[in-house]
Amino acid sequence: MLFERIESRGLAHYSYLIGELNAAVVIDPRRDCQEYMERAAAEGMRITDILETHRHEDFAVGSVELSSRTGAAIWHADSALDYRYGRPVEDGQSWKVGRLALEALHTPGHTPGSMSYLLRDAAGAPWMVFTGDALFSGDVGRVDLLGMDRAEEMAGMLYHSIFRRLLPLGDGVLVCPAHGSGSVCGTSIADRPWTTLGMERMHNPRLQVMSGEEFASLVAVELERPPYFRRMEALNIQGAPLSAIPLPPPLSPKEFAREARDAVVVDTRMEIGYGAAHVPSSQFIWHDGLASFAGWLLPYDRPLLLVSETNNPEQAVRTLLRLGYDDFAGFLAGSMLSWHMAGLESASIQTITVQELCRRLAAKAQAWILDVRAGEELARAGRIEGAVHIHVTRIPERMQEVPKDRRIYIFCGSGMRSMVAASWLKGRGWKDLVVVLGGLAGWKSLTCPIVQQG
Amino acid sequence: MLFERIESRGLAHYSYLIGELNAAVVIDPRRDCQEYMERAAAEGMRITDILETHRHEDFAVGSVELSSRTGAAIWHADSALDYRYGRPVEDGQSWKVGRLALEALHTPGHTPGSMSYLLRDAAGAPWMVFTGDALFSGDVGRVDLLGMDRAEEMAGMLYHSIFRRLLPLGDGVLVCPAHGSGSVCGTSIADRPWTTLGMERMHNPRLQVMSGEEFASLVAVELERPPYFRRMEALNIQGAPLSAIPLPPPLSPKEFAREARDAVVVDTRMEIGYGAAHVPSSQFIWHDGLASFAGWLLPYDRPLLLVSETNNPEQAVRTLLRLGYDDFAGFLAGSMLSWHMAGLESASIQTITVQELCRRLAAKAQAWILDVRAGEELARAGRIEGAVHIHVTRIPERMQEVPKDRRIYIFCGSGMRSMVAASWLKGRGWKDLVVVLGGLAGWKSLTCPIVQQG
Amino acid sequence: MLFERIESRGLAHYSYLIGELNAAVVIDPRRDCQEYMERAAAEGMRITDILETHRHEDFAVGSVELSSRTGAAIWHADSALDYRYGRPVEDGQSWKVGRLALEALHTPGHTPGSMSYLLRDAAGAPWMVFTGDALFSGDVGRVDLLGMDRAEEMAGMLYHSIFRRLLPLGDGVLVCPAHGSGSVCGTSIADRPWTTLGMERMHNPRLQVMSGEEFASLVAVELERPPYFRRMEALNIQGAPLSAIPLPPPLSPKEFAREARDAVVVDTRMEIGYGAAHVPSSQFIWHDGLASFAGWLLPYDRPLLLVSETNNPEQAVRTLLRLGYDDFAGFLAGSMLSWHMAGLESASIQTITVQELCRRLAAKAQAWILDVRAGEELARAGRIEGAVHIHVTRIPERMQEVPKDRRIYIFCGSGMRSMVAASWLKGRGWKDLVVVLGGLAGWKSLTCPIVQQG
Amino acid sequence: MLFERIESRGLAHYSYLIGELNAAVVIDPRRDCQEYMERAAAEGMRITDILETHRHEDFAVGSVELSSRTGAAIWHADSALDYRYGRPVEDGQSWKVGRLALEALHTPGHTPGSMSYLLRDAAGAPWMVFTGDALFSGDVGRVDLLGMDRAEEMAGMLYHSIFRRLLPLGDGVLVCPAHGSGSVCGTSIADRPWTTLGMERMHNPRLQVMSGEEFASLVAVELERPPYFRRMEALNIQGAPLSAIPLPPPLSPKEFAREARDAVVVDTRMEIGYGAAHVPSSQFIWHDGLASFAGWLLPYDRPLLLVSETNNPEQAVRTLLRLGYDDFAGFLAGSMLSWHMAGLESASIQTITVQELCRRLAAKAQAWILDVRAGEELARAGRIEGAVHIHVTRIPERMQEVPKDRRIYIFCGSGMRSMVAASWLKGRGWKDLVVVLGGLAGWKSLTCPIVQQG
Repeated sequence: MLFERIESRGLAHYSYLIGELNAAVVIDPRRDCQEYMERAAAEGMRITDILETHRHEDFAVGSVELSSRTGAAIWHADSALDYRYGRPVEDGQSWKVGRLALEALHTPGHTPGSMSYLLRDAAGAPWMVFTGDALFSGDVGRVDLLGMDRAEEMAGMLYHSIFRRLLPLGDGVLVCPAHGSGSVCGTSIADRPWTTLGMERMHNPRLQVMSGEEFASLVAVELERPPYFRRMEALNIQGAPLSAIPLPPPLSPKEFAREARDAVVVDTRMEIGYGAAHVPSSQFIWHDGLASFAGWLLPYDRPLLLVSETNNPEQAVRTLLRLGYDDFAGFLAGSMLSWHMAGLESASIQTITVQELCRRLAAKAQAWILDVRAGEELARAGRIEGAVHIHVTRIPERMQEVPKDRRIYIFCGSGMRSMVAASWLKGRGWKDLVVVLGGLAGWKSLTCPIVQQG
Repeated sequence: MLFERIESRGLAHYSYLIGELNAAVVIDPRRDCQEYMERAAAEGMRITDILETHRHEDFAVGSVELSSRTGAAIWHADSALDYRYGRPVEDGQSWKVGRLALEALHTPGHTPGSMSYLLRDAAGAPWMVFTGDALFSGDVGRVDLLGMDRAEEMAGMLYHSIFRRLLPLGDGVLVCPAHGSGSVCGTSIADRPWTTLGMERMHNPRLQVMSGEEFASLVAVELERPPYFRRMEALNIQGAPLSAIPLPPPLSPKEFAREARDAVVVDTRMEIGYGAAHVPSSQFIWHDGLASFAGWLLPYDRPLLLVSETNNPEQAVRTLLRLGYDDFAGFLAGSMLSWHMAGLESASIQTITVQELCRRLAAKAQAWILDVRAGEELARAGRIEGAVHIHVTRIPERMQEVPKDRRIYIFCGSGMRSMVAASWLKGRGWKDLVVVLGGLAGWKSLTCPIVQQG
Repeated sequence: MLFERIESRGLAHYSYLIGELNAAVVIDPRRDCQEYMERAAAEGMRITDILETHRHEDFAVGSVELSSRTGAAIWHADSALDYRYGRPVEDGQSWKVGRLALEALHTPGHTPGSMSYLLRDAAGAPWMVFTGDALFSGDVGRVDLLGMDRAEEMAGMLYHSIFRRLLPLGDGVLVCPAHGSGSVCGTSIADRPWTTLGMERMHNPRLQVMSGEEFASLVAVELERPPYFRRMEALNIQGAPLSAIPLPPPLSPKEFAREARDAVVVDTRMEIGYGAAHVPSSQFIWHDGLASFAGWLLPYDRPLLLVSETNNPEQAVRTLLRLGYDDFAGFLAGSMLSWHMAGLESASIQTITVQELCRRLAAKAQAWILDVRAGEELARAGRIEGAVHIHVTRIPERMQEVPKDRRIYIFCGSGMRSMVAASWLKGRGWKDLVVVLGGLAGWKSLTCPIVQQG
Repeated sequence: MLFERIESRGLAHYSYLIGELNAAVVIDPRRDCQEYMERAAAEGMRITDILETHRHEDFAVGSVELSSRTGAAIWHADSALDYRYGRPVEDGQSWKVGRLALEALHTPGHTPGSMSYLLRDAAGAPWMVFTGDALFSGDVGRVDLLGMDRAEEMAGMLYHSIFRRLLPLGDGVLVCPAHGSGSVCGTSIADRPWTTLGMERMHNPRLQVMSGEEFASLVAVELERPPYFRRMEALNIQGAPLSAIPLPPPLSPKEFAREARDAVVVDTRMEIGYGAAHVPSSQFIWHDGLASFAGWLLPYDRPLLLVSETNNPEQAVRTLLRLGYDDFAGFLAGSMLSWHMAGLESASIQTITVQELCRRLAAKAQAWILDVRAGEELARAGRIEGAVHIHVTRIPERMQEVPKDRRIYIFCGSGMRSMVAASWLKGRGWKDLVVVLGGLAGWKSLTCPIVQQG
């Protein structure tokens, strides 16, 4: 028997490959789908079906691509939508995978047509359930995608889906969701990469409720909605084929500078290298942050140019492809070293350590500090007295709240998101920006004062 | 958080790497241990402890090797034994792994000192239990290792371990055993690579009992005991260091023939290639069968020579290393093609298809058929009328039951084990041997007669 | 500086990647062209130009594919042909590659428009010459492609190209041809993977001549012309794009048998496995022989089905793609083991060792022996008395010379080509075929009689 | 035939693997020798002999390690030395490699007992010559290793070796030296990775001489001699076995800081990241500069700690192993991000772009500029008016020439070596250091003034 969870790091997206005897099924594939094919072929299994748990909003699903290369049938949840490909799933529908069986369970709430898929073992016993975005490890799916006016209604559906359809399958059933810790699809998915219905029933904070009403009051909240969600929603209706993984060309500094006039430059190095020297007007998003922040900050209608530490942008390209970015104009060959050796001017953003900030604050209380962490982090971990809070993802729309005429210290959990924010602000005219390296983690390890949220 | 199950295929041995923040722990490592180190290092985690669930009898544990390369502490179960390395574990002992914790549970039965390790998540909830050979997916550990006279006593302990210590942890706890389907450590481990206490409580056939007595009557049975078990037991007390993975030298046919005078030749190709032509006196064990059959058929006191399809014996060497074989004299460069091109004589064993056997049997009932499948397979799947049954692993001791003066048709599930048996017999003087390709699987797909065991 | 020779084994095709500073050029690329792109990108070099030495007849050139993925310009030799893509090269034309330069030299003879490319180092000194099929290590290009009536004329051109244009560049210049030892493009390319004009001037047997006439008398000979050459010629005019490397689906034995009705089955295992058991009507061409024999024996107008030892046909697919085969219906999952386990009938071809043949011949002289080696091998290495000689590539057209009513012993250098021939004959009704394992190599190592060609 | 040049980048060390039929030979292996073994085994070739061209002074030769794993015989040049292993080579001695032959030519000059090895093809023709450090592409070996008082004598030997023994082999013979461009073993090895005796005869600047005297006057010069040469010389007499490639443990920032008290911290990131923030007292040597500068700056008697961009120090470890560094205490898990997040203080070194320096110089001429390029670079490419020149490798011994009481601008070709020098000075008390990013390359692309050496 073949069971593989294929994870797209960053997105924290989980897809699944399940095979037995000669057949295999993929649940919620990503666009770069060679891996499913190679693993199944190595076991002599043919991918016959592709099951989607819902119309994904946070990444471009790879069903069309995988189907075009294998001939597998595509089955849609959220079948009321006007898909340009595939066939609708119905509640109760089932598929054979060798001697195993998969069975569709309608589990609405995150979306109206969300499906879970129950895997039964060869003896027919319920074994695993693929819950999509209905139920995560330590969290449940968000219910605000149709708007807050329908959130309570959706929360009611989700309550029913979880408490009436999923949990009754039995504590011993493994839960296989579409996302793990770090995804934007849940506010607090646990870093517990394998879980069960029993674990969730007993330890998932959202499920420790007495009633559907209590559940709804917990989960019917408005969450961040990255601007790229709309695009993913449209793309997943349309289908997102991919002829081959694009390999952006290496560009000399001069070619790069020329292309940069029309393109958006994304620098995926670490925060301190970027701070010290970068291509002017480039946007900083460190490599492992691409999945979380590209969709907020990078446009879809202009080509992308990449700066990374090495001459190998492949992994960054894959992450961006999964977010639906297809247009890559090239990468800077030789990175910043070649840029400087070509005599081109670079820009920089000042950085300081937490110790230094602490010293400055002790000396003089009036620093203007911008804290770009998420609200829940402030609530959980505390904050610096007097800091102004704007989550990094809100900077584009709320940047006017940041004064341009004084020095701004930017603060987050580690320094990475601070640099993302600084990079955005710098590109829009702010001049005196200082990023605090180490962020709250560093701060807490010192004896600098933290205020618990009150 | 890092959680990796590292599987040694063939042995169906599962080891585990669990890490959080800066620390990692390995449970029941194999000897070729580079992989644990590389994966932990990639996450920035240092391996601090190595936990053994029991003194393994079916493979050489890699604790000494891994410890010598990482400085990690080794913790022994079965601590009454006179280990030359490491420290004893006590019931209830615990280890921190970042914010997670592991806790030792004494779960005797398979061995007197078997330990399970309970992993608690960052909130302290029981999450996974590493059960060694106490509890498998669909099976429990064997209890006959101390002899059949103590088997009931051990079964009683195992009952207590499972029903009083493991199952009460809760249905939702994941079960992580030391072996999966295909291991010699259980008679019928299920092909269900992930499982939970709930799954086992409800669906493990050994656990559907009313009492300890009923349990004992089910499990206190004598199982096969490969001769190499004693060697592994001794080696695992001693420690089995490994300076580097040996890379056997390629040998020309003439060098190979010369070395073969003192060494044992193992041919790991497929059954039909071996049948058609092989180095005289070589023992056939196909590559994927090495883990199961080498310990029955290959001596430890003579060097091994390898024949494989390609010039890359690495995977075969790794499997044999895991079984404690360390002395490799070389491999046949260019395989049988070079052998024949050197003008050296090869031997062969006749093969026929199931259709042909079926035709011959229909024409004339008196074929002498040797069925080398395991007893439970005959019981489950039926047999050919009149066939004599000796399990392939018993051939060395029971071969005298096979007549030398007539044609012997050898039969198994697929043809592979038949060729193993034929190869053994041929090396000891039997002449007229015919291996049936396709075995019972092929037989059943035709309309040839099968007798259900009566 | 980047200089890579990318070899396609089997075809013994050499392509070249040359880069300096930010730019790179590829000479005679193959269709599966990811490797050029990755290596150049890793050095930060952009592929700007693709140079062809001539219109290739023995493989599908990858210029269109590589150009479509990099934007590189394609430059054609043999520019009189009516290409559907690219631009013509002119004698003397030059390209910059960083500080290096490439310069076109018209070197006709193999084809009328063959070009060589001289690489000059940064100081302008002649350094390497890319000779395509004009000059090989130990051989020169064939001149019979336009027909034997023009062969002398072409030989004259080739003499001029080599003696007047190439050799005068100086003994110290490295020679980089389009093929190495084993290619069908030369009859006797030396196994000397790096060479120089000096080496060739002094040691290439074709160049040890006193005059153009003597040269022509040596080289204006008719050579084998695989039927697929015409197809490659057409394809290389047309362009052979390739959206992605096809990954043929794994098929169960029953699916495979069904597809086999309309497809051609190619078995790429070794000769002894094939001899012992194979899918009826399959054509044997061992994996490393595909590049040499597929073009003679496999049609282009039917899908191909593959049988190999493992579930990984990728390398076979790549080789066939390079020969212009694009239609793969699948591969047999689980190889012959699964075939037999499905109860399907297999066929076999008898094999014997050279010793056995030797014994039989000693006992009785009248065996009918078919020797399928190339003519020059017989001349060089001798032959068995009384054997009938038909080169394996001529079997399709001359098979009627082989009697159907008696036992045929088939003989070659090693047994591999014998099995290719046996497989072809068996598929067309011959019944009593015996392949001699080890072939002449084995034969010579014994004391069996060899007749030197007289 | 197998011919592989195995290159150790950075060291620009070339070793060679030559095989034919069943045998293979390695010339000048490196310590991490798995690659030779794997490549030979894949071709079915056994490594029978290891040939050294001379007692290497710039890296630790892997002969003992390779011999211990393959049983191959070791053959020493410079056989007057008191080796603890292997056997001496004599002039004219020869070895068979299948049908090929290698033949020793005594070619003293770089060392008294240097040997070249001539490879003859199967027909006996001279084909390649492995020249060690006698003759390079565009350069010849240094002759000052025994001291300048013997340099002329050695130059005389080298003249004879090259002009009387090597060049007469013929222009068409390929030259395979022990080093390529970038090695410290030649002052100006050309970036021409393949060459011939003809190329060298005509284009090597050292060989364009009328007499031995003229040659001696060109080459009998004193070159830099890194302090680690003595250690390599001793190690290569002793033998440098290596049980396994060490894998340094990941250390948390606190563990790292603790270990750093006794160890030397090497930071292998890029110059701008290091400049912005680094572990205090760490020495900067960027990854690709390790081979060139570690031997000058890192001690052998203290453990090393590594900082790199990722959690994978393997390549840095390999390079350092090749230089004889064996003691690695660990690497900083999570790199500088984790350092800052642990609240540990980091240090920084200021950087400016060439534009900025240019502007400052234009405004005020009195900047103190330290140029750390090699002398020949200044001669070739010019310098900044008024800059003080000390080659980076001389900084340890000449640092007192740099004032401590004023701002020092450090300048090189690109900024990398400037940071190496800055890092050294900072660790010894200099405070006001400014590294110029882009170096001379950037400088020249602007219109900033350059003085040609006068």
